[in-house]
Amino acid sequence: MLDYNAPLRDMRFVLNELIGFERIGQLSGCDEINQELSDAVLEEANKLASEVLAPLNRVGDIEGSQLEGSVVTTPTGWKDAYNSFKDSGWCSLSMDPEYGGQGYPKVIATAVAEMWDSSNMSFSLCPLLTNGAIEAVEQHGDAILKSLYLEKLVSGEWTGTMNLTEPQAGSDLSTVRTKATPSGTHYLIQGQKIYITYGEHDLTDNIIHLVLARTPDAPAGTKGISLFVVPKYLVNSDGSLGDRNDLRCISLEHKLGIHASPTAVMSYGDQGGAVGYLVGEENKGLMYMFTMMNAARHAVGREGMAIAEASYQLALKYAQTRVQGNVIGEPDTTNTIIGHPDVKRMLMLMKSQVEAMRAVNYACAFEYDLAERHNDTDVRAAAERRGDLLTPVVKGWSTEVGQKLTSVGVQIHGGMGFVEETGAAQYLRDSRITTIYEGTTGIQAADLVGRKTLRDGGKAIRELIADMKVTLDLMNGDSDQTLQIIRDSFAQSVDDLEFVVDWLLASADDPRLAAAAASSYLHLAGITCGGWMLARSAVLSALQLKDGTTDRGFYDAKIDAARFYATQVLPETSALRTAIAQGSETIADLGVSSF
Amino acid sequence: MLDYNAPLRDMRFVLNELIGFERIGQLSGCDEINQELSDAVLEEANKLASEVLAPLNRVGDIEGSQLEGSVVTTPTGWKDAYNSFKDSGWCSLSMDPEYGGQGYPKVIATAVAEMWDSSNMSFSLCPLLTNGAIEAVEQHGDAILKSLYLEKLVSGEWTGTMNLTEPQAGSDLSTVRTKATPSGTHYLIQGQKIYITYGEHDLTDNIIHLVLARTPDAPAGTKGISLFVVPKYLVNSDGSLGDRNDLRCISLEHKLGIHASPTAVMSYGDQGGAVGYLVGEENKGLMYMFTMMNAARHAVGREGMAIAEASYQLALKYAQTRVQGNVIGEPDTTNTIIGHPDVKRMLMLMKSQVEAMRAVNYACAFEYDLAERHNDTDVRAAAERRGDLLTPVVKGWSTEVGQKLTSVGVQIHGGMGFVEETGAAQYLRDSRITTIYEGTTGIQAADLVGRKTLRDGGKAIRELIADMKVTLDLMNGDSDQTLQIIRDSFAQSVDDLEFVVDWLLASADDPRLAAAAASSYLHLAGITCGGWMLARSAVLSALQLKDGTTDRGFYDAKIDAARFYATQVLPETSALRTAIAQGSETIADLGVSSF
Repeated sequence: MLDYNAPLRDMRFVLNELIGFERIGQLSGCDEINQELSDAVLEEANKLASEVLAPLNRVGDIEGSQLEGSVVTTPTGWKDAYNSFKDSGWCSLSMDPEYGGQGYPKVIATAVAEMWDSSNMSFSLCPLLTNGAIEAVEQHGDAILKSLYLEKLVSGEWTGTMNLTEPQAGSDLSTVRTKATPSGTHYLIQGQKIYITYGEHDLTDNIIHLVLARTPDAPAGTKGISLFVVPKYLVNSDGSLGDRNDLRCISLEHKLGIHASPTAVMSYGDQGGAVGYLVGEENKGLMYMFTMMNAARHAVGREGMAIAEASYQLALKYAQTRVQGNVIGEPDTTNTIIGHPDVKRMLMLMKSQVEAMRAVNYACAFEYDLAERHNDTDVRAAAERRGDLLTPVVKGWSTEVGQKLTSVGVQIHGGMGFVEETGAAQYLRDSRITTIYEGTTGIQAADLVGRKTLRDGGKAIRELIADMKVTLDLMNGDSDQTLQIIRDSFAQSVDDLEFVVDWLLASADDPRLAAAAASSYLHLAGITCGGWMLARSAVLSALQLKDGTTDRGFYDAKIDAARFYATQVLPETSALRTAIAQGSETIADLGVSSF
Repeated sequence: MLDYNAPLRDMRFVLNELIGFERIGQLSGCDEINQELSDAVLEEANKLASEVLAPLNRVGDIEGSQLEGSVVTTPTGWKDAYNSFKDSGWCSLSMDPEYGGQGYPKVIATAVAEMWDSSNMSFSLCPLLTNGAIEAVEQHGDAILKSLYLEKLVSGEWTGTMNLTEPQAGSDLSTVRTKATPSGTHYLIQGQKIYITYGEHDLTDNIIHLVLARTPDAPAGTKGISLFVVPKYLVNSDGSLGDRNDLRCISLEHKLGIHASPTAVMSYGDQGGAVGYLVGEENKGLMYMFTMMNAARHAVGREGMAIAEASYQLALKYAQTRVQGNVIGEPDTTNTIIGHPDVKRMLMLMKSQVEAMRAVNYACAFEYDLAERHNDTDVRAAAERRGDLLTPVVKGWSTEVGQKLTSVGVQIHGGMGFVEETGAAQYLRDSRITTIYEGTTGIQAADLVGRKTLRDGGKAIRELIADMKVTLDLMNGDSDQTLQIIRDSFAQSVDDLEFVVDWLLASADDPRLAAAAASSYLHLAGITCGGWMLARSAVLSALQLKDGTTDRGFYDAKIDAARFYATQVLPETSALRTAIAQGSETIADLGVSSF
């Protein structure tokens, strides 16, 4: 039995039915990508994920990546897996054909990447970070940087990293101290960076570090930070590898989870200075980082959802086979625990929320596809607003929920869940990082309130609410009783969301209130977005059932999930509305002596 | 700086003010226990907890207990710590003076034990399980068993275990297979038991196992299980140690947390049969276990709260010292992260809920004291009903919340929280077992609905609601605006609870509905009980402030916590009410094909 098997039917439902493949096919550059091809790509990816990556997940957890001297060794099997991954072309799936990429839209690449996250999150972080480096060089690098680095990063021959954090500069990067001193055509980099994912490893011949640093005369704060390409091995003008650069990994963190993913402390310039090349212009580094960060945040939200999916699959298998206790009302069955109402509740808590998060996540990716590839300027602009609005929601909400669900996954296993051998606990441990890196949930919430809601006077969020109301109108008066239960519950959540947006805009003169409300607002928005997607799924499914689909079981289950979410999850929005409206002042008023 | 320092002032507040020490002092056998003595006991316990046990917590996590052959070695320092613990008399604090105990009431022993749980949960499990064994022998054993075993268990010279679970018999003990064959004055025990906490260790000369097993002609199911004392070393009639008994530890689990607490797989009777002595009568073993289980469940609820307290202390220290970002509205401060509204929110989420859980937990312990030691029969009976009602709430709610709070503790640390060195992650890992052992949350919820609510037609829960309404009446019309905010929010939760109790009683004819609602009902009851305790704390604190207390900071903070809880936590009860009333049928209707 496979440890993990991608939920291909669910993925195709979101891509082909909920988003609608015809909309994906209309994106510029997608002429040759049809639904059959897309389905085939997903199936191929599942083979690698389920047969190669998933079996290495526990090995990676037990062995971890190890540092000896300044050399990092990845776990048994890691290197072969990476080579298979690279050689099958997965690194370049959504990359620009100009640099050897295959030009697939983000939304399909997202479904594919979900499989890497689910099957082996530690492994998946390596290509994820490389994507960030590619984006930085592609969007902001000059022709020389592009020609020397992009093709090899796109093919996966080299990997990339993002070096932001320093001990004193975490959520607040304005205090970055790493120095970059001009020296001819390059700069000399000196300083220490921490939490560098795959900062050192043995998978490829070279590692391309993207490093934030300050030039000597740079202004203080966020406006004096520049971005540099700092390769582990210098690259000659013909693309061959030159000298070892003056940088090294000086330690690896011992972490709660993702043991196989080396989290490095990197030291630059111990022998005088690591050679670095400026990306774009001086002092614009943080701005460049922020454009990359949207993609990374979206990806981490995807991780939150994907690990919960893997955790769900494991818990479901356990519940289907573990015999224990008498099932109420069914004394003659085999009594596997899936018959117990509370176990069904826990499983559906997982399934329904994973489906909600998946749909929101893919939808967000598709907004970025539209923003980049639609032929209408207004559509592009609206899609960018929507993508930017949804990104902190996808990141903050999906990781918080995902993490809670991996804990539910442990719970369904009972005592076995606490024993590491089972694997349920690893999902809980691995997922625990997702609410922290690429900006904590608090940072996402501040972004959602400040930059994404208050700054445009509520424009983007009101557009979203208006779209939700279109769905409500569509559902209005439907004779299907289940759809009405779903509609009514979703309508209340939309009302809660709208109320809170009004409240936030009205409270904008006291920034402490908005800050106090931010996290609850993020959750409210996430839950409601999830409810929207599941309501639309239910409508689509009801239509399929009415039209006599042969896939009744699948669509019935979609409606079950939507109804469960409507009655068990959506009611939380009213509690959050109350907490915001009545409790934000309470939070803002708390002083140091309250603790 | 100490890793852990007991919140003595908070503990004294609950004991001396909220419960009221005069009520504790009136218990029979407490003539010599006054408030000064009780306070001094807490201070002494804190010395051991903070100076001896807390410093070993991380050592224990890293080293774990190790099995070689059938010998288990506890981590460095464990044996010395156990000897200090035993020699200072902590094992016998609440035990019967007849067997060398000090006769302290449970409520004081609970405050003391909270310190063991907080400072070193792995360590604390050893005396906790011994307590269970003592209770079993004391309540159900014959004179010989009592005379041979009790004094040495009470003094801590020996430890005890509880052997219930077998691979096929976890939550459902009706399928226990371990055999007990009569052989003269004793029985021969054969079978395998799993998840035996401190089933083997090197702390004491002997280990007394309490083992569930079946005699040859026992009826099937729960009514054919008997309880046996099975010592590691046989005990001669003069109390000296005799032969090694035929039992051994064959493996230790590799667990997510509580690494230092050896979780043993025990094999009985490999060489023909371990000598075991019947406790009480044949076939009544499960009933005996259930009486012990109340105490154990209350204790695990206390663990949930206590680890969250430890996690809070660590997070608070971090938030008070970590400098990062600009605090809104306070640009000139030192900018430690405790100034950020979202960090204050997270810290107060921890503090307020820990205080709520502590108060409910101690109050529940005091009900059992009343049930045992009050001179009025009616009071005793009412207290027993209340204690039995509150036990599954204390266990289920406090462990679920406690576990979530340890995750918040990690979150407050940002990236540092994911690094094991910090210690925040260990609290998360350790606490993860609390919702599982001694009956999962689902089992607690089923107990609360079935045995504690429906069986007596709602009598005990309605008594509780009536007492809550007394507090509401008392608060009614108070001119203090903060008290009114707290009152109104609490009134809504009491209304939600009452509504759901009515709904449960009305739905009793469909047991699937009650089972589907059980977990939400448990949370609703727990949150509301916590709200009750904090509302009463706020009333008491307001009185103290009015009376010109010199301890203003303390009482102000108590009101802050109550107000926060009222606006941020209590609103959840309405969401749970909706989920129960509108969603239980949804859950009950889910079929195997929904997943």
